Amino acid sequence: MSQTGPDASAIGPDEAAAAPGRPVTISYIAETAGVSVPTVSKVINGRTGVASDTRARVEALISRYGYRRPTSSTRSNLVELVFDQLEHMWGVEVVRGVEQVARAHRVGVVLTEFGPERGGVRYWIDDTLARRPDCVVSVAQLSAEQRDQLRARGIPFVVFDPTSELPDDVPFVGATNWAGGRSATGHLLRLGHRRIAMIGGRDRILCCRARLDGYRAMMEAAHLPVDADLVARADLTVDGGRAAALRLLGRPNRPTAIFAGNDLQAVGVYRAARERGLRIPADLSVVGFDDLPIAELLDPPLTTVRQPLVEMAVAATELALALGRGEPTQRTGLELATSLMVRDSTAAPPR
Amino acid sequence: MSQTGPDASAIGPDEAAAAPGRPVTISYIAETAGVSVPTVSKVINGRTGVASDTRARVEALISRYGYRRPTSSTRSNLVELVFDQLEHMWGVEVVRGVEQVARAHRVGVVLTEFGPERGGVRYWIDDTLARRPDCVVSVAQLSAEQRDQLRARGIPFVVFDPTSELPDDVPFVGATNWAGGRSATGHLLRLGHRRIAMIGGRDRILCCRARLDGYRAMMEAAHLPVDADLVARADLTVDGGRAAALRLLGRPNRPTAIFAGNDLQAVGVYRAARERGLRIPADLSVVGFDDLPIAELLDPPLTTVRQPLVEMAVAATELALALGRGEPTQRTGLELATSLMVRDSTAAPPR
Repeated sequence: MSQTGPDASAIGPDEAAAAPGRPVTISYIAETAGVSVPTVSKVINGRTGVASDTRARVEALISRYGYRRPTSSTRSNLVELVFDQLEHMWGVEVVRGVEQVARAHRVGVVLTEFGPERGGVRYWIDDTLARRPDCVVSVAQLSAEQRDQLRARGIPFVVFDPTSELPDDVPFVGATNWAGGRSATGHLLRLGHRRIAMIGGRDRILCCRARLDGYRAMMEAAHLPVDADLVARADLTVDGGRAAALRLLGRPNRPTAIFAGNDLQAVGVYRAARERGLRIPADLSVVGFDDLPIAELLDPPLTTVRQPLVEMAVAATELALALGRGEPTQRTGLELATSLMVRDSTAAPPR
Repeated sequence: MSQTGPDASAIGPDEAAAAPGRPVTISYIAETAGVSVPTVSKVINGRTGVASDTRARVEALISRYGYRRPTSSTRSNLVELVFDQLEHMWGVEVVRGVEQVARAHRVGVVLTEFGPERGGVRYWIDDTLARRPDCVVSVAQLSAEQRDQLRARGIPFVVFDPTSELPDDVPFVGATNWAGGRSATGHLLRLGHRRIAMIGGRDRILCCRARLDGYRAMMEAAHLPVDADLVARADLTVDGGRAAALRLLGRPNRPTAIFAGNDLQAVGVYRAARERGLRIPADLSVVGFDDLPIAELLDPPLTTVRQPLVEMAVAATELALALGRGEPTQRTGLELATSLMVRDSTAAPPR
């Protein structure tokens, strides 16, 4: 592999790979791929007339060496916002944060939901390309191929709250899930609880794993062994929370507090407690995670760890727009702090 | 006023006013306004160089006589979706319905929230015009001026769930609020309730007035006088519902059932009942309106009148797209049926 590009302003590929923020030229990509400059241009602009294997080769090179649309004159003043599925409780907060920034910068927001069976995925890249957005904010899990396709068109993207492992060079905005797990557990410990159970989500969802590890870290800091019987795994749903709580509460030495993986699971814990004849918080303390609008509507209002969804969406959109303007950005990955919202579902354990 | 336009294919203004689906030509608008055809064209295409009074005169004429963009070659494959404020509980359902249709028709959705203080209103028409959408679905209350501006550009729009009176020629999709009010009241009557209270919203919000009138109609059909003491007015919020319910429940001959103006008010009724030491449904039955995702998460799960928000959004978007394609549409105003969701917050009155 050559250490120098064909253009004095370009940087060598190895160096480029190490510093993806510094793009190479189109002519260098063309030479390396063994195709003409117009062919690379066609790929970048998403036009037809390029064989699919050639297209894939060019995209892979662009993704590897970097490419940035040179001028700001092509700005469309559009941000693409994409969801796998718009969650009932969760999606609006994210959309509001994006809209807030869009108003301030006077850019339009094109919203796409891939939907059930991800029916919208098929045409999304093509349609996005045709719209030429300035940037993408993705709440959906983009595949490596989709990320390559966006990079090949010089369209920067930011991943909102990644749920799976991403390469280091993918910009993202998330929440401090691990610290949030510690904070919830610390609150229960300070109230005097010792048998604190945790209902985790699935370990493959990174935020769930981080919350669980935060719980474990805080329990161990208090010199309390984390009894395997105290950790349940369940889907992040009401039914998941209820089933897990029924199992936890059915054991001889039942926990006096349950830290649920999210607020929906906490609703399930409320139901399980009622079925077992336990009062919240007199007999059982409950903590959730997310601070959805329902949290304070529950009876009793739920103590929970707040994810700053609106602020996270604001930060993700600001970052994406800055990348779209080609501005140098110091931090392209950040986690915003969670905060504990103490309400009425937690109290000292029963004597 | 002339009865014939300057073009054989055009129709006279009086006839046009009576049949707004049949547009007149640009040259007829120009002649009537006393300006040149290029000036009318400038107004339609939102270009500069037209005095503001001339622009307003041309827009008013176009709005009155109708104008439709002639070709489908100018389609942008974009739908504009606009909200005053994205309600936490409500907005996602609407967005999902719009997205469902957008996926099927492969059009992009540009989402705008005017936001607090309606900061986004200022540039919305200009930016919408620059994007040249095929149509607009408005959950926001568009002013007469905004409607004129859209009409002048040949951009059809559909109002989602209008909350105030609209001219007859404005296409809309709503829900059968009056029938929903009857249905909720009928359910309580069949359970044996006689003292049924209603918490209405503000009368200026049309859907609130329709729900209240449905309640009254059903009470009268059962030969029960609607005691003025049984009807409260409150904002459509948890606090509004709580305050109204505390007043209703504090009276000597208190109601055995409360029909709330929406689900958030019903949450407030739950709180008031708890404060008064009343059990739901043993001592008090409660019915809501909307069937938000919270309804079935409440304890006990709430009996409520379901507004088919997703289906309404689907219908509004299909209608707007059909208008955008210039297709003849039979019905440009429709209400979709509500349905009663019976859960655990209603039972026979205490003996």
